[in-house]
Amino acid sequence: MKTDLDPAVAARLKRGSDGLVAAIVREHDSGAVLMLAWMDDEALHRTLTTGRATYWSRSRREYWVKGATSGHHQYVRSVALDCDGDALLVTVEQVGAACHTGAPTCFFDELPVSGGES
Amino acid sequence: MKTDLDPAVAARLKRGSDGLVAAIVREHDSGAVLMLAWMDDEALHRTLTTGRATYWSRSRREYWVKGATSGHHQYVRSVALDCDGDALLVTVEQVGAACHTGAPTCFFDELPVSGGES
Repeated sequence: MKTDLDPAVAARLKRGSDGLVAAIVREHDSGAVLMLAWMDDEALHRTLTTGRATYWSRSRREYWVKGATSGHHQYVRSVALDCDGDALLVTVEQVGAACHTGAPTCFFDELPVSGGES
Repeated sequence: MKTDLDPAVAARLKRGSDGLVAAIVREHDSGAVLMLAWMDDEALHRTLTTGRATYWSRSRREYWVKGATSGHHQYVRSVALDCDGDALLVTVEQVGAACHTGAPTCFFDELPVSGGES
């Protein structure tokens, strides 16, 4: 897909075999981890230049501006790339619930940890 | 790969085409997002049962107990699965630097955000 993403940024991305990088989404005020989504170059370009978090939906195979249908907008405060270029940390102001279930975050399903000291 | 991961947990995972799920790693005390890594079923099993964060290295194609060579151990406090089963949030006590560069987190490369209100 043709994209206007800054070539200097594009050169630092290490995409998976599907052309995507993982985007961790964090709430600006609380620091809470809200969700994980996926971006291709164009989704990242739109996120950086519109200030609205925009992802690639792997299931629907289309771009997805968070909140466009739900009203649960994500206003982008900052975006950081990780040391090896395969993940992004997107810090947002979240309107309403981040999760499509209505939960504040998508990570509400705790798994049992049985090992280790603590 | 044969694994002893609890079948009830395995049934909830939605793996990528490479058999992996993304693992977001967060520091317990500060809430800081430290890194993104990858787990297959066996890495998750080891993480849940040993209390030591264990990943699948996509580049080296092997299991990787964080800190085994660096001493920068991650003691697992909790693990949560997201609503659609394709991402994990691993909360750890981090010893030393999380990033192989020596930085406290892997997300130190800020990208310019030009759009939107703030």
